[in-house]
Order: sequence, then structure tokens, then C-alpha cells
Amino acid sequence: MAGSEAKNSGSKQSGAKKKEVKKETGLGLTNRKADNFGEWYSEVVVNAEMIEYYDISGCYILRPWAMAIWEIMQGFFDPEIKKMKIKNCYFPLFVSPGVLEKEKEHVEGFAPEVAWWCNVVRWEFSNPTPFIRSREFLWQEGHTAFATKEEADTEVLEILELYRRIYEEFLAVPVIKGKKSEMEKFAGGLYTTSVEAFIPNTGRGVQGATSHCLGQNFAKMFEINFENEKGEKAMVWQNSWAYSTRTIGVMVMVHGDDKGLVLPPKVASVQVIVIPVPYKDANTQGIFDACTATVNTLCEAGIRAESDFRDNYSPGWKYSHWEMKGVPLRIEIGPKDLANKQARAVRRDNGAKIDIANDNLVEEVKKLLDTVQQNLFDVAKQKRDECIQVVHTWDEFVQALNQRKMILAPWCDEEEVEADVKARTKGEMGAAKTLCSPFDQPELPEGTKCFASGKPAKKWSYWGRSY
Amino acid sequence: MAGSEAKNSGSKQSGAKKKEVKKETGLGLTNRKADNFGEWYSEVVVNAEMIEYYDISGCYILRPWAMAIWEIMQGFFDPEIKKMKIKNCYFPLFVSPGVLEKEKEHVEGFAPEVAWWCNVVRWEFSNPTPFIRSREFLWQEGHTAFATKEEADTEVLEILELYRRIYEEFLAVPVIKGKKSEMEKFAGGLYTTSVEAFIPNTGRGVQGATSHCLGQNFAKMFEINFENEKGEKAMVWQNSWAYSTRTIGVMVMVHGDDKGLVLPPKVASVQVIVIPVPYKDANTQGIFDACTATVNTLCEAGIRAESDFRDNYSPGWKYSHWEMKGVPLRIEIGPKDLANKQARAVRRDNGAKIDIANDNLVEEVKKLLDTVQQNLFDVAKQKRDECIQVVHTWDEFVQALNQRKMILAPWCDEEEVEADVKARTKGEMGAAKTLCSPFDQPELPEGTKCFASGKPAKKWSYWGRSY
Repeated sequence: MAGSEAKNSGSKQSGAKKKEVKKETGLGLTNRKADNFGEWYSEVVVNAEMIEYYDISGCYILRPWAMAIWEIMQGFFDPEIKKMKIKNCYFPLFVSPGVLEKEKEHVEGFAPEVAWWCNVVRWEFSNPTPFIRSREFLWQEGHTAFATKEEADTEVLEILELYRRIYEEFLAVPVIKGKKSEMEKFAGGLYTTSVEAFIPNTGRGVQGATSHCLGQNFAKMFEINFENEKGEKAMVWQNSWAYSTRTIGVMVMVHGDDKGLVLPPKVASVQVIVIPVPYKDANTQGIFDACTATVNTLCEAGIRAESDFRDNYSPGWKYSHWEMKGVPLRIEIGPKDLANKQARAVRRDNGAKIDIANDNLVEEVKKLLDTVQQNLFDVAKQKRDECIQVVHTWDEFVQALNQRKMILAPWCDEEEVEADVKARTKGEMGAAKTLCSPFDQPELPEGTKCFASGKPAKKWSYWGRSY
Repeated sequence: MAGSEAKNSGSKQSGAKKKEVKKETGLGLTNRKADNFGEWYSEVVVNAEMIEYYDISGCYILRPWAMAIWEIMQGFFDPEIKKMKIKNCYFPLFVSPGVLEKEKEHVEGFAPEVAWWCNVVRWEFSNPTPFIRSREFLWQEGHTAFATKEEADTEVLEILELYRRIYEEFLAVPVIKGKKSEMEKFAGGLYTTSVEAFIPNTGRGVQGATSHCLGQNFAKMFEINFENEKGEKAMVWQNSWAYSTRTIGVMVMVHGDDKGLVLPPKVASVQVIVIPVPYKDANTQGIFDACTATVNTLCEAGIRAESDFRDNYSPGWKYSHWEMKGVPLRIEIGPKDLANKQARAVRRDNGAKIDIANDNLVEEVKKLLDTVQQNLFDVAKQKRDECIQVVHTWDEFVQALNQRKMILAPWCDEEEVEADVKARTKGEMGAAKTLCSPFDQPELPEGTKCFASGKPAKKWSYWGRSY
């Protein structure tokens, strides 16, 4: 798997460095991303101070370092849906058994468009993974109702585009927009669209977020009617859509390395950490003042910068600490920097060191943060793309699955065939299933056959194992 | 009760009007605030579309009209505490029995300052009242830790001032800042401060929000230590503070009238509702265009304005509907207004009608909204102040309590005396207790005696029944 190999070579380097660092500072990870992905992940979310384990299986404390990411995404998404005239509300945590059986609700007039931010709990549950699969999680849940199917269809895609932007523009994680198969769609709905991410290290797809058109099924069941323009009673068309704190887990898995978390600048609560590097004979106060001035200048320019002045930790320890926490840019100021009226910037994503003249500080830091954001996306996309494999036959499919690929295959779009694929690939690693049929469809030449059934193919679909 | 009488005369007028309106529109309340306060309140929160009842006792759906108020308060408070370097986090909904018994937590290094926005559920429970007393409610809960008591003391009051601003500047509800008695303080804490509101109609105080200094009790119990400047292990000083959706209930109770909800402009999700008033022969399209232009102009100026173009409702029905929902300002545009290049504004708080020339629209509307906000506070404060009664003796105290006053009395500050007052006033209406000792203490002349014990008084305290 090319993507994973590229990762490996990078990891070996930083792994070697890491061990030295660990020896020196007591920080660092004991597992490597390429070797023990699951353990590496658990270590990163704890050591980066995102998660604190809790004594109930599958429940985690979201520490400020993780919560801030959620808040930044909320800060983007909530105003966007408000522009679409969607309003927030809050529903009680508990549901009575009677209502669970069938909620008899008589909505008079047109149901308003509603969304809410809330916590969700699931009871039956195994194999918890922080963010990705937890007993309780935070999510945004949207419910909207429309007079016509056309309006509902349009909104499904508008929301999906917002979800794509959260992943690609904020979390720097490439995703594929598409439609779920009949088997994988939301039961009872008309159709489901999703953004699908991929984790090269495990070769698993992740359903990133979903935007469903529910059709009129629920409107019929719960008699959700409105008076249309002609004054007639009509049934609404409903949508439903959600994304959750799973987003954060995907981001950790995609960008993290053997030094710990790697945060895209747009979701980092601290974008720049400024660390004084005093020397014995140097002007220590001058260095501290320069650090404070640097933080102030950056903050005034809208950059989220902080200093680390703790005097019970060495600069080296601080470097490792903030690398572990994934801060995109470190600025070091020592005697030489002070003398040269400059600061040294170090990128978290690739370790590159750049000297910045004080006069250009804001401009250069902004440019660097943009570059880091773009580079994280580009690298992630390249790795993801290297994992995509086009197959035409069952043998090719099985081989690609064993190589942990994200498989693009021509498919007859029949439910029994998907069930059959699932059954034939069942095993320790989990069965393969459709991830989505991408909206961006490659050409499907006449006569192309389904990779699994040999019947005429109707579309291209992504297949793979998934979280 | 002067405050309540003033209210009555106002209510009678609008009550009479209301019945006509009700007849005409099918809207309106069946209970009057002065006659059946509890029923009036339940009707307002439902008819104004804030709350939808739910089939679990004490659980309510918070509809967008209520949720928007909570979001506006959050939009003020959250940035304020972030300026104070406080960070948000999320704790799991469930707690294991072991942890409930005693949480053995070993925090290495200094505990970060944390706050979170969450839902709270209570099990044992009776007499639910939407917002004021519910099984589940939303709140903001803050926990902070400091190196010194002085820093903790300072923050207690900084937070309390933010709570005062939420009540007085946003909800237009006057509150009294003070300290809770030993009996009423948060158990286990060092001291509790609060903002206390008062409901003239019921003569009950409401604890509006609390800011506690917990001292070092919990630090001792859970061994929350840090390394101080001298490199020594030291125990933290902790604070804890919260306000909840109860704020919304207090606002409804204080400002609402016999036409329904009255929203202070600063927390109204719709500050101005623009209603077209077409006549048979008039230029209907011109009127609708003028309404749209008005809404656009106001929105561009940062005013939250909407139009109501529904053609299956009459203007009269719309007036009543938006009055019920408490929108601070209604703008009507009819043929005459169109001809005169003006709009007619009607204030929700006092029904005053003001013609506004189109050229001065933004300026005049802004001024009117400020006036409404200030007037709501002034009227509420006058009514509240008229309920405050100073007493010196037990007989005066009992008489004032029967008159539903907020009683200010000199007190010996002894726990047994408060217990005794509670025991002696026990009855159908509930016992009296201390609300707070106001920070703003009237003069206490030497020799002043406690109203209840006759011992030397140490301070002035507010007493009364409470929610």
C-alpha cells in the first residue's frame, strides 16, 4: 500500500527521534502509528490531552483541547445553517416507552425547521474507540421539512457540502461525496448521502457525516401536514442530517504521527506556541519580553497564540509537549533571535525551520499557517488517493481488500449482491461493504460488468471495510 | 402590594382588549396574570411557542423561540469567560456508583480552569414548572482552581457580575447581589454568592444564579495539588458557578402580561416583526415590497427583523400572534404609510404607536428598541422595589410575609434562628428563609436588634418565600 509505505518511511525517522526525545523529556509515545495503530491512537488522544478515560466503558471526558475543536466546527456550521433559516431547539434526554413505540404527534400548520446540538447515548455496545465509537457522543442533529421534494433534494446537498467543508477546509481531511446503497441507507428514509473518509493505516472507510432525504414516510406515519399554496392539506418532505465528534477522531487518525497529534491550524485552539530559549549569560528578561510582544502582536492580528513561560520545564521538554499536542507552529526566541530581531518558526507538519524577521511576523505566520493547512490536506489526499484501487473482477477485489484498499468497482446496484459480498468477505477483519456511490462517477463504458455478479454494471461504487 | 396593584390596573385593560382579540382571532390567554398566576404562566410558555409539553413529567421540549434566548445569553457569557482564560470541556452523562461514592482523582500539576455547557437531570422531584423547576434543564457549569484565596475571591465576584449583567442588561430583570446564609450556601463550600430576583405576583424570591467559593475542602478530599512558585506542593482554592435555563422562566414571569410573552429586545430572536396591512383597492404589491425593503434595511443594520407575509391570516390575527410571542416592536405598513413614505411602529411593552419616516427607519428603530429594553427594566425594578419592605420586629415580619413582600430585616446571623424562622412560618405557602445578605448593606445603627431573636443584629438580610 503506497500511501502507508510513504507514511512508514516518515514514521521511522520521527520514531527514531522520538525515542531520543522520550529519553530526554519523559514524553513521547510508546507505540508507533505504522506498527500498532490502535494503541498508537489511544495513546495520542490521551497524551495530547484530548480525552481522559472514565470508569464507564465507552465514555470519555472531552478535555478542553478536544472541546475547542468541536466549538470551532460549531462556530462555522451553526451560522451557516442559521443563514438557511434553520433554528435550534432542545429535546429531553428521556423518551417514554409509549412514545418510542409510536409517537402520536399532530403538528398543526407547517413544521418549523429545527436542529439541535446534543449528546447521544447508546446502550448496546462493544469495541469502544474514543471519538470514533463511543457510548456517548456529541453531535449536531438537523431535521427539516419542505413543501416539495425538489426543495428537500436541494437542501440535502447544501448540507452535505457544509459537511465536506468541515472535513476538507477545517480538518484537512479529504472526503468523497456520494450516495449510500439501499442496504446502507438510513432505514425508513428515501435516500442517504454521505461524506466518506478513509484511514490509510487500517484500510478502513469512515462514514464522516450523513445527509438524508426521508421522503414522506415519517410525514405519513406521524401525520405531519401543512396547508399548501392552494389551501389544500399536503404532506411535508423531510430531511435529516448529522455530524458528530467522530470528526475529531478521523482528524487524529489521518494527520497524527509518531510525535503525537497534528492539528490543522483552522481547528487548533492554539495555532502558535511561543517558547523562550534562554541561555546562561543571555538577556533572559529581554527574551521573555520578546516572547510576550510576539504573542500580543499575533493575537491582535487574530492568530491564536500563547506563550509557555513555565520555569520548571526545559525548552526541549516544551518542544515535545506542544508537538505531542499538535500545535501547528512553534516559535522559539533565544539570544541570537533577540540580537537579530527575528524569531525561529518550526512547523509541526514537517519539522521545517524558518527564521522570521520581527517586521514581517504577522504576514509570515499567516502565510505559514495557510501553508500548513494546505499541506496537511495535500499530503492526506495524496495518501488517500494512493489507497484507491479500481477493480473489475472478484479476484482483483479480494486482492485489493487484503491490501487494505479503498476499492472503486463497477456494480449492478442489487441489494442481494451487496449481501453476498458481505457474506463472502466475512472474517476476523470484518466484512466489506459499499461505502458510497460517488457523485463524481468515472465513465462506465457500455457492457461493463459488475465485479461481483457479472451482471451489467449500473454505477461505480466505493467498497471496503469500515469503522 | 403596590407593585401588584399597578400591574392589576394594567392587566385589566389589556385583559378586556384580549377578550375581544381572542374572539376575533382565536388567540389570547384564558388566564390572567393577576388572577391565576400559575395557569397564566403555563399558558404563556406554551402559547408563545417556547415550550412543548412532553409525556415525561418535568421534561419539556425547548422550542426555537426559547432556545434562541439561551443561545443569545451563551453568546454573551461564553466569550466573557474565555477572556478570563476559562476553557470548555464535556463530562460523560453517567457516573458509576463507585465514583459517586468517592472519586479518587490524582491531578498532577495545576488543574486547568474548566467550564461546560450541559444538560442536568434530577431524579427525585415534584411540582414541575417549565424553566423554573424541571427534571432536566440546561445550564452552564464552571469550575476553576487558583493558587490563592485572594484570586478565588476575586473571580467569585467577577462571575457574579456577569450573572448580574445577564439578568439586568439582557433579561431586563433587576437582581440583588449578595451572600447566602450558612444554611442556604452550597454544602461543603466556603461561601456562596448569588443574584436574587423576585416575582411580585407570587411574592417569591428566585435564586437567579450562584457563584461559590469552595475553599480547599474538595482539594483536600481529592488531593488536587499544584507546585507553587517556591517549588512546594500546595492545595488549590476552588470556585464553582452556574446559571441555567431558569433565567428564561424568571424573564417570562417578570415581564409577561395578559397578552402573553414580553421579550426584552436584547434576547429576542425577532426584535421587529413587519406586517403588511393591505386594503382592497390599495397597491398590495407596493405594500409587500415596502415590507421586504424595511426588513432588509433593518437586517443590514444588525437588527433582527422578519416579515409575516402569510396570506391565510389577517393582519389582526398576526398582531395577536406576535404579541403573544412577545416581539418587542411591530411595524405595520398599509396604503397610508406607503403614500406617506413611513411605517407605523407599535411597542409591545406599552402599546405606544409611533410613525417613523422611512428616511429615519434604522435610527428610530434602534432608539425604540433601546427604549423598550430600558423601560422593561425600569418598570420591573419599580415593581420589585415596591415589594421590598424593611421590618424590625417579628410582627412586622409576619405581616409583610402575608403581603408577599421581599423583606429586608436586621439579623443576628445565627443558623438556629434561621431554622426557627423556617419552623415558625411553615405552612401551605412554604416557609420563609433568607434570600441573601445584600452586598449593598443599609446602615445598621449600634443597638439594632435581630427581628427574630432579639439578639444584637449583625447584618441586613433579605427574607421571603422562594421558588
